[in-house]
Amino acid sequence: MTDSGDFDAAWLPSAAFRAVGGRRVLMRAGAGPPADTVHRELADACERFGGRVVRDGVDGDFDLVLGPTGDDPGDEGFTLERRAGTTTVTASGGRGLLYGLFHVVRLGEDAFRGERAREVHRPALASRMLDHWDNVAVHPVMGQVERGYAGGSLFWADGRARGDLERVRAYGRLLAACGINAVALNNVNVHETEARLLTDRIGEVAAIADVLRPYGIRTHLSVTFAAPMVLGGLPTADPLDGAVRAWWAEATRRVYEEIGDFGGYVVKADSEGRPGPFAYGRSHADGANLLAAALEPYGGTVHWRAFVYDHHQDWRDRSTDRARAAYDHFTPLDGEFAPNAVLQVKHGPMDFQVREPVSPLIGAMPRTRVAVEVQATQEYTGQQRHVCWLGPMWSEVLRFRPDGGVSTGRLADGLVAVSNAGDDPFWTGHPLAQANLYAFGRLAWDPAADPRAVLDEWIALTHPGAPARLADGLHAVLDGSWRTYEKYTAPLGVGFMVQPGHHYGPSVDGYEYSPWGTYHFADRDGVGVDRSTATGTGYAGQYAEPWAGVYESPDTCPDELLLFFHHVPYGHVLHSGRTVIQHIYDTHFEGVEEAEEARRVWAGLADLVEPARHARVAERFEEQLRSAREWRDQVNSYFLRKSGVPDARGRTVH
Amino acid sequence: MTDSGDFDAAWLPSAAFRAVGGRRVLMRAGAGPPADTVHRELADACERFGGRVVRDGVDGDFDLVLGPTGDDPGDEGFTLERRAGTTTVTASGGRGLLYGLFHVVRLGEDAFRGERAREVHRPALASRMLDHWDNVAVHPVMGQVERGYAGGSLFWADGRARGDLERVRAYGRLLAACGINAVALNNVNVHETEARLLTDRIGEVAAIADVLRPYGIRTHLSVTFAAPMVLGGLPTADPLDGAVRAWWAEATRRVYEEIGDFGGYVVKADSEGRPGPFAYGRSHADGANLLAAALEPYGGTVHWRAFVYDHHQDWRDRSTDRARAAYDHFTPLDGEFAPNAVLQVKHGPMDFQVREPVSPLIGAMPRTRVAVEVQATQEYTGQQRHVCWLGPMWSEVLRFRPDGGVSTGRLADGLVAVSNAGDDPFWTGHPLAQANLYAFGRLAWDPAADPRAVLDEWIALTHPGAPARLADGLHAVLDGSWRTYEKYTAPLGVGFMVQPGHHYGPSVDGYEYSPWGTYHFADRDGVGVDRSTATGTGYAGQYAEPWAGVYESPDTCPDELLLFFHHVPYGHVLHSGRTVIQHIYDTHFEGVEEAEEARRVWAGLADLVEPARHARVAERFEEQLRSAREWRDQVNSYFLRKSGVPDARGRTVH
Repeated sequence: MTDSGDFDAAWLPSAAFRAVGGRRVLMRAGAGPPADTVHRELADACERFGGRVVRDGVDGDFDLVLGPTGDDPGDEGFTLERRAGTTTVTASGGRGLLYGLFHVVRLGEDAFRGERAREVHRPALASRMLDHWDNVAVHPVMGQVERGYAGGSLFWADGRARGDLERVRAYGRLLAACGINAVALNNVNVHETEARLLTDRIGEVAAIADVLRPYGIRTHLSVTFAAPMVLGGLPTADPLDGAVRAWWAEATRRVYEEIGDFGGYVVKADSEGRPGPFAYGRSHADGANLLAAALEPYGGTVHWRAFVYDHHQDWRDRSTDRARAAYDHFTPLDGEFAPNAVLQVKHGPMDFQVREPVSPLIGAMPRTRVAVEVQATQEYTGQQRHVCWLGPMWSEVLRFRPDGGVSTGRLADGLVAVSNAGDDPFWTGHPLAQANLYAFGRLAWDPAADPRAVLDEWIALTHPGAPARLADGLHAVLDGSWRTYEKYTAPLGVGFMVQPGHHYGPSVDGYEYSPWGTYHFADRDGVGVDRSTATGTGYAGQYAEPWAGVYESPDTCPDELLLFFHHVPYGHVLHSGRTVIQHIYDTHFEGVEEAEEARRVWAGLADLVEPARHARVAERFEEQLRSAREWRDQVNSYFLRKSGVPDARGRTVH
Repeated sequence: MTDSGDFDAAWLPSAAFRAVGGRRVLMRAGAGPPADTVHRELADACERFGGRVVRDGVDGDFDLVLGPTGDDPGDEGFTLERRAGTTTVTASGGRGLLYGLFHVVRLGEDAFRGERAREVHRPALASRMLDHWDNVAVHPVMGQVERGYAGGSLFWADGRARGDLERVRAYGRLLAACGINAVALNNVNVHETEARLLTDRIGEVAAIADVLRPYGIRTHLSVTFAAPMVLGGLPTADPLDGAVRAWWAEATRRVYEEIGDFGGYVVKADSEGRPGPFAYGRSHADGANLLAAALEPYGGTVHWRAFVYDHHQDWRDRSTDRARAAYDHFTPLDGEFAPNAVLQVKHGPMDFQVREPVSPLIGAMPRTRVAVEVQATQEYTGQQRHVCWLGPMWSEVLRFRPDGGVSTGRLADGLVAVSNAGDDPFWTGHPLAQANLYAFGRLAWDPAADPRAVLDEWIALTHPGAPARLADGLHAVLDGSWRTYEKYTAPLGVGFMVQPGHHYGPSVDGYEYSPWGTYHFADRDGVGVDRSTATGTGYAGQYAEPWAGVYESPDTCPDELLLFFHHVPYGHVLHSGRTVIQHIYDTHFEGVEEAEEARRVWAGLADLVEPARHARVAERFEEQLRSAREWRDQVNSYFLRKSGVPDARGRTVH
C-alpha cells in the first residue's frame, strides 16, 4: 500500500517501517497466510528503505531474525529479545510473528539499540473483535451503516458485494497492526437482506474472509434468531425444537464448507424488538446454546448480546429501572451457557453514554465466558464530528475490579467494539477518531496499558518523525477530549439528554417522557435517578462490595456518577466543593472553552499536517464548537429555568 | 359509483339521491362537461329510484326542472324556487346547475315540499381550493404525501401516473358536492420528480384535469421558482431577467396547449429552504408577478404563499418573533401584486396549531387578492388518528373581522385547504375526518354558515335516514372534538409541544431550543410568549384596533390565546377564575375524559354503523385515548415539576 491512494495510511504510513526496512532480516517460517503476510511486509519495507530480507536462509549477520520457537507464548503471542546486535522475534505460529513484526515496527529504532532481555508478549484477551453495524443495503432510516459516521460500508455497495476488496485488505492490515483478530461483518439488527448472508450470500462473506485471513482475522456474522423461519421456512425458531436444531446444524455446516476458519455468530435476541427465545418460553442460555451446538464441531463461537431490556417502559413507573435489566435477566443463568458461548455485555448498564458505571453484570457470572462491548463509533460521543478520544474511558472500564481488587483476575474474556470505520477516505470521518480504533485494539491486547502511552504510540506511528510541536499538539488535542465532551453534555453521569432518534446534539428532555427507560427526573428542586437500595430502584445493590456500599450513598458515590445513582437537590455539595447546579454551569462553560482551546491548538499545527487532513479536522472543529455551545446553552438554560439559581459567576445563561 | 367498491361513498351514498331519484325531472341545458355530469347524476338516480329524467323536453308535469336563466347568479351560482308542485333550479351555466343539483340532493324531500320563494345561491369565495402535498414519488423522509395520513397518493403510484383514474373521478364528484372548484395536484415543496409535471409530464396532469373538469374543478400545479434553472437549464431564475420571463411564458403556453382551463400555479418561495426571488434581490411581488404575467393571457392565477420566515432562528434571541414574519414581509408590498396573483396566507401567524389568533396579514392588504389557507390534513390536530372536527375552528377564522366589524367585507377572496384525502378506502384515514373535507367546501362556499348545521348536513348525507340515536351520537362525538383536542394538548394558545419532525404526540420541550421560532419559554415561575407592544415582540401591534388593544393586555386578551400573547406567572388568574396552572391540570384531565366519553358514545353506535367503518373508528379511538393520556401526563408532569404547584383537586400527576 502506498501513502497516497483512495484512503489514508492511518497508523501504517510507509515511513513507519523505516527502521525495519533498512535492516538485514532473516525470516524463518513455514508458508501460510499470516506468515506470508509478514514476509511481504518485510520485503516491501526493505525494498523501500534499502534493507534486505531472506526467507528460510542460514544464520548469518542479521539485524532482525523472526522464526519459530520451542517455547509456547500461545497461539498469538511472541517473544522479543536483542543480543549481540541481533533482534530476535519468535512465535509458535504465523499470527504471533505478525504481531511480533508490528511490535518491532512500533518500537522503530528502539528495536535495534543496545541489549534487550527476552520478553514474552501475549494478548490478555483472546477475543478482540470489531462489530460492524453494516446493513449491507441502505436502510431507509438508519442508512447503510447503523450509527455509522464514516461514510458507507467497507464491504458492500448498493446492497451488493464490492468487487474490489483492496480497501478491506488495507483495513485488515490496520487491524492486525493494533492486534484485532475478529470482525463481525454485519449489523446485529439483522434485516431481510443481511439475513441471507448466512445462506445464499455466504460466498460474499467467504471472499471477505479470504482477504482478512492473511491478517490473522477471523470473520463472524450477525444472524437473526428467526433464521430457521425467515430463511428455512420452518414454522418455529424454538431452540429446543429438533427441526430448528437440525436447520442450524446444516446451515452452519455449509458456512464452514465455504469458510473453514469462520469465527461464529453474533446475536441480538429479545432486544429492541428482535426475535429471541422468550417467544418460546425458553431462556437465553437455551438460545445461545442452540447456536453454540451448531458451531461447536468447527471450533466456532457464538457471541450472545446481553442487551435485553424493556424498551416499552412507562416513564410514569419509577420502580422499573432499565439499568437493572441485563443483570436481572442473565445472572440466574450463570453456568448454563455452553463453553463456546460468550455473553457480550455492554460496558455500562445503559447504552454507551459518555459516563456510566461499569455494568454489574461484568464480573457477576464467573461460570460464563464474558466479552465487554464498547462503542468506537461515537453514537453518543459526538458522532465523529466532535473530537473525543475514548482511550481513557475504555481504560477505566478495563481496569475496573468488580470486587474492588480482592481477586486479580481479568475483567472479561474478550473485548468487542462497534467499529467506527467506513469507506470515508480517512476511514473514520474525523481523522483523529482513528486513534479510537487503534486504542481499542491495543487495549484489548493489554487492558492494563496506560492510555496516554497508547495515544503517544498512535501519534508516533501516524506521524513518523513528527516534531515535538506536532506530537505535543496532537496529544493536547486528544488526551482530555473525552472529559471535555463530558463537561459540555449530560452532567454527572445522568446520561442521554440527546435528540431522539439520531442522538446528535442536545435535547435535555428528549428522552424524559419516552418508553426507553432513560430519564433524569429533573424538577424545580433537584435532578438525578435514585438507584440506591434503601430508597431507590436497588440497582446499586447489584454490585459486589465495596461498590454496592460506595454507590449506595451520595456521600461516597464518585461525583462523576452522582446523578446516575442519586436524585439530589441542586444545592447538594459535591466532593469537589461545588454545588450540583454550579457544577453544571461551570463544566458547561469549561467544556466549551476547552474545545475552543483544542481548536486553537489544531489551527497552530497547519504547517505540520497534510493539508487535506488538517482541513478535515478544522472543519469538524467548527461544527464541534457550534454544537458544544448549543449543548452549553441548552443545558444551562434548562437548569436555570428549572432551578431558578443564577450562575454564581454571573456568566450569560439564556 | 356504487356504495360498495374500493372506496367509501362518503357523503354521496346512493341513498342520498332517493328524493331526487324518485322524481320526474326535466333538464334543459346545452352539452358540456358540468351539464353532462348533472344529466348523468340525474339519470343514475332516477334509474335507481324509479324516477324519470328528460333532457331538453317540452314543459309538462315535472317535479324538478333544471335549466338556464336570464338572470345572472354568477358563473357558479344558481337559483332555487318551488311553485305549484314544481321545484326549479336555474343557472347561467353548467357549473351552477351542478351546484344546484347537489343543493337539491342535500335538501332531500324538503326540496319537494310546499312552496319556496326564489332563492339565489352563489359562493362567497371565488376560489375554493384543495392543495395536495403529493410528492408523486415516495420521499425518503416525508413519504408519498407530505403530512398525509390517509394512505398514498390519489394521483400517482410508485412515482408514475395511475392508469386507473376512477378514484380521482369519485374524488372530483365528492368535491363538487361540497362546492370545491380547484385542486393543486402536488406538494408545495417541489422536488425533482414533481418539477417535471410542468413540462415532460404535463400529459399526466392533463389526464387528471380531464377527469376533474366534469365536476367543475380546475387543476393547478405547484411549481418551483427555480424551474427555469432546474428544467430550463438557464443560469438564473431572476424574475426580472428576460430569458427567465420568456421561459415561463413558453412553459405556460405549452401547459395551456394541453389543458385549456388550467387553473394556475402554486408557489412556496423563500420558505423553509425553497428557492425564491430573495436570491436575486427581488421582492415577492416581483416573483409572483413573473408567474402572473405568464398565466395572464390564459386566465390563470398564481397562488403565492406568504409562509416566509426565518427557520434558522436562534432560540436565545427573544426579540425575533416568527409570528411577525409574514406581516413584516408582505404588507409593504400591498398594491404591487398583479390582479391574477393571490397571496395565500395561513390562517394563523405560526403553522396550523390547534389554537392561533387569525393572522394579522389577513385584512392588512386591501389592494391585494388574498386566500386564507387552512389545513384539513391533521398535521397538528391528531393526524387522523384523533377525531378532531375542524369546522368550528375554521368558522372562527372565517368570521373574524380584522377591524372588529366596522366594515362588512369578506375576510378574503379564496379559501384553500391542504387536503386530508388519499387512497385510503375511507378517503381520510379516520372515517370521521371526512367531515372536515366536507365542511371545508361548504364553509368556503358560505363562510357565514353555522358549522353545527354543516356537521348535521354531513351526518345526514353520509347516513341517509339515520335514526336519531345515530345522528345525535355522531354529532356528540364530533361537535366538541376540536376543543377536546385543544384541552389535552398545548394549553392557552401557546402551541407546538409536539414531537419534532413528525409532529405526532407530546414533547413539551421538543421545539423549545430549536431554530424554528416556536417557543413557550416555560420556567419555574411562568410560561408564555410576550408578544405585546409595550414589553414584548410587538406582534400584537400588527393588528388593527380593536384587536391590537385587546391582545395587548392580559386583562383583555381572550383566555384561549393568553399564552400566545403573554408570559404570565403560573398563579395568574384567567377570566375563567382559574389560575393558569390549575387550568392546565383541569383541561388535561377534562380532555381525556371527553375523549373517553366520545369513545363510549361511538361504541354504543355499533349496531347502526357499517361494521368496517365502525371498527376503523373504534381502533382509532384506542390510539387517541392512549395518545391523549400521554399528552395529559406529560404536560401535567412537566408543569408540576417546573412550577411545584400541586393539583388543587389532588389527582395523580406523575
